[in-house]
Amino acid sequence: MAPRKEVFEGVEWRIRVAADGSSEALVPATGLARKAWLGIKGLISGFALKVRMFVKKAWDVGTNDPRKVIHCIKVGLALAIVSLFYFMRPLYDGVGGNAMWAVMTVVVVFEPTVGATLYKCFNRVLGTFLAGFLAVGVHWVASQSGERVEPFVVGASVFLLASAGTFSRLIPSVKSRFDYGALIFILTFSFVAVSGYRVDKLFELALHRIFTIIIGSSLCILVIMLVCPIWSGQELHSLIVRNMDKLADSLDGCVTQYFNQSGEGTNSKEEATDNKLQGYKCVLSSKASEESMANFGRWEPSHGQFNFRHPWKQYLKIGASMRSCAYCIEALSSCIKSRSCAYCIEALSSCIKSENQAAKLIKQHLGSGCLKVSSSTSNVIKELAETVKTMKKKPSTTDLLAEEMKSAVQGLQNDLKTIPHLLNPSAIPGNKTLETACLEATTPTVTLMELVPVVTLASILIEISGRIEALVDAVEELAKLAEFGINDDKSKHSKMTDKTVSDAKQQTEGTMKALQRV
Amino acid sequence: MAPRKEVFEGVEWRIRVAADGSSEALVPATGLARKAWLGIKGLISGFALKVRMFVKKAWDVGTNDPRKVIHCIKVGLALAIVSLFYFMRPLYDGVGGNAMWAVMTVVVVFEPTVGATLYKCFNRVLGTFLAGFLAVGVHWVASQSGERVEPFVVGASVFLLASAGTFSRLIPSVKSRFDYGALIFILTFSFVAVSGYRVDKLFELALHRIFTIIIGSSLCILVIMLVCPIWSGQELHSLIVRNMDKLADSLDGCVTQYFNQSGEGTNSKEEATDNKLQGYKCVLSSKASEESMANFGRWEPSHGQFNFRHPWKQYLKIGASMRSCAYCIEALSSCIKSRSCAYCIEALSSCIKSENQAAKLIKQHLGSGCLKVSSSTSNVIKELAETVKTMKKKPSTTDLLAEEMKSAVQGLQNDLKTIPHLLNPSAIPGNKTLETACLEATTPTVTLMELVPVVTLASILIEISGRIEALVDAVEELAKLAEFGINDDKSKHSKMTDKTVSDAKQQTEGTMKALQRV
Repeated sequence: MAPRKEVFEGVEWRIRVAADGSSEALVPATGLARKAWLGIKGLISGFALKVRMFVKKAWDVGTNDPRKVIHCIKVGLALAIVSLFYFMRPLYDGVGGNAMWAVMTVVVVFEPTVGATLYKCFNRVLGTFLAGFLAVGVHWVASQSGERVEPFVVGASVFLLASAGTFSRLIPSVKSRFDYGALIFILTFSFVAVSGYRVDKLFELALHRIFTIIIGSSLCILVIMLVCPIWSGQELHSLIVRNMDKLADSLDGCVTQYFNQSGEGTNSKEEATDNKLQGYKCVLSSKASEESMANFGRWEPSHGQFNFRHPWKQYLKIGASMRSCAYCIEALSSCIKSRSCAYCIEALSSCIKSENQAAKLIKQHLGSGCLKVSSSTSNVIKELAETVKTMKKKPSTTDLLAEEMKSAVQGLQNDLKTIPHLLNPSAIPGNKTLETACLEATTPTVTLMELVPVVTLASILIEISGRIEALVDAVEELAKLAEFGINDDKSKHSKMTDKTVSDAKQQTEGTMKALQRV
Repeated sequence: MAPRKEVFEGVEWRIRVAADGSSEALVPATGLARKAWLGIKGLISGFALKVRMFVKKAWDVGTNDPRKVIHCIKVGLALAIVSLFYFMRPLYDGVGGNAMWAVMTVVVVFEPTVGATLYKCFNRVLGTFLAGFLAVGVHWVASQSGERVEPFVVGASVFLLASAGTFSRLIPSVKSRFDYGALIFILTFSFVAVSGYRVDKLFELALHRIFTIIIGSSLCILVIMLVCPIWSGQELHSLIVRNMDKLADSLDGCVTQYFNQSGEGTNSKEEATDNKLQGYKCVLSSKASEESMANFGRWEPSHGQFNFRHPWKQYLKIGASMRSCAYCIEALSSCIKSRSCAYCIEALSSCIKSENQAAKLIKQHLGSGCLKVSSSTSNVIKELAETVKTMKKKPSTTDLLAEEMKSAVQGLQNDLKTIPHLLNPSAIPGNKTLETACLEATTPTVTLMELVPVVTLASILIEISGRIEALVDAVEELAKLAEFGINDDKSKHSKMTDKTVSDAKQQTEGTMKALQRV
């Protein structure tokens, strides 16, 4: 420490000397000063880098979803408007100087979606109203009981009602609808009841609080509904449709990729498809947001295609049904990609290299069936997505596609049944080429091990198609509850379904062609 | 209408007459009155029923987790204490009549866990502090710019800062740590800045607000930490351990149930085990709560076995790793129970009825291997749970059990390899009884279809054991990061692991015995 201090003092002194013009004495000083300067510069540039990174992140948030920026502007706007209650004398006097409650209401009540804002406004007004009058009543009782007892009566009532209010927030049925209301109830009750001990015009205080909160809430509702409104219900609807499409793409993509693995010419698109394959993960992780959207959706008035009592809860059932499919796709994609399969693929590729065609043959044997099941299943999902999206009456094609899916499953089951013949060729009557191939197949290289991933895949696919039937039921129930297609234009409708059918056909043909290439 | 009204008037009149004693005239009156009374009684009893149901639900919430009741009492207590700022004149005058901020702070800041309360307290104080002084500064600038321009300067600053503050809440890294702080920043800034237009002693107002908020926060922290504290970190820790045990039970239970299905004497325990089998669903649905607990855990000071910088984030990795296993168990349990399996079980049972033992033989052939894999895998999970629970150094048995699991997987793979011989018995050298059975098996009743569920199950089991290895890695990393076993009592430790090994052995023997019965 000591020598360092000396150096520092010397430097200080030399700088003072430098003012006299003896610049050569400054050499060690600039050395140190430069070090210090470099250190500070490093700190600053490090800080600047962090800030730049943060700004970039923020910029990405804004550009990825411009509606978030609009939401921020709306909050600013609502607050600027409510500030008028301070800036304009008549307004300020009108609320008896309690304008701050209006400001606070705007800040805490303004949410990104209409439903969430309405939920909070309603809860805030109701909670304040109930608690305000209860508190005035308690204050009256307390004030009748004498000055010495008063604090105890008020304190006990605060203790009891705050405990009860907090407890009610822990009951699921109350929590989902009135959580915020219970909080505001406790807040207002405590505030008004204990204020009563010091404030003279308690009733006026409670009235002003309710009045200003109503003003703030009304302003929020006006701004949120008039300036680019975002509806929870609409968001939920879009999310479900988007997730259905993702699910269909994932399912189809996984299976196609697996059976094209040993094929050629798919590398170029790999990156684009990899994103598609991961789509099912969105379905797995969207439970919480679905629930909150459905919760807020029921507070929203009729908007767009949705009535006030739109069956938002049914969307949760559809979501759960999709998740149960997504779990299977998770197992499927892992069975394709990872460990349990790794050694099989290895065995398979070695088989292919040694030009033993048997394993490839088996894969192809099941591949056709698997691709049929996956493409028909994803067609059903896409058709369901289209039904939900357009909110038209269930087109007849859904039943058709579901039938197609069932027959594809039946076909795959038949394919599975004939596999033992491939392992035991003596049982096959007739089929010459297959028999020749299978004679090679009975050499010890072809064991059940090579079949395991394909059989697993086929089995999980069958399970998925079963779960899709539950999804079909859920969507059908939604269509019934929400009265899809009440205002259908019939000709338009039939045109649409025709297009869907031809789309479905095209797609099936495409996957079949892809299969031919294997 | 008219005749009804007449009747009503008549009734009214007759009641009046009834007061004179002419009771026989009352017959139609009591008829109507009774109807009305019955209606009201129905309404009341309906309402009473609803209330009773609600009370029962609330009672269940309380009895299932008495800590919730304690939490409610704590809230009441904190509020009663903070009310003293109103009831005691010196305290009330001390905060310049601004005691309401302390009351409000207690209501909005008090959360069930210590971490969540600390997070809110810290954010509230920080947000108020920053916003308060910024607002005083803005007010000073505005007041210098003249009376006409002042509202515009203040309004613009409120608009800009509220928008920016709202935007910052939408950036994930800010949201996870300072969401509440940003809200309080907007609230305080708007409130203080616009109040400046009407209030004279603005600096005093800001100071009082900060001071009262600090009082409220300190009181909350004292109550939450001294009266039966609930720690987010401890909760997360217990949740992870509990979920691991559930995962192990589910996995073991599913597989054992499947291979005991055709056995006898399991019906009596069915209900109890059914709950166990569903345990993996808890793992699937606990993502959100894990995340929030880990988020709050990092605000907590050193408590119990946990240091201030305990690696809570690592628990999230363990949770994710467990979920990836749970997805597979979902697929597994569905492959055991539902559609894809239904026709197989049917085929199987018909085989059993016609005393064709081949299918049963195959099931038994793989069953031994599958049970070994599932029991060794669940032993590994249980050992990991024990390691996390006790926070001791990783016992050597974990590696041992992991090796055991790997060799069980290898054994199952070998079993899979030998299946074709069962289908094609000519390849089997020697084994007489098996050969006899398999000669029956070559009759067309035994197809690959009967193998599909067993093979799928085996394949998914292998995948699960692979994923468990990832779980082992995650737990090992946690042990390293959290420095498990720094204060180990060595002798105690070795005793514990000895017990675990004997437990594991007992369990394996138990499942083996269960298998013998098949």
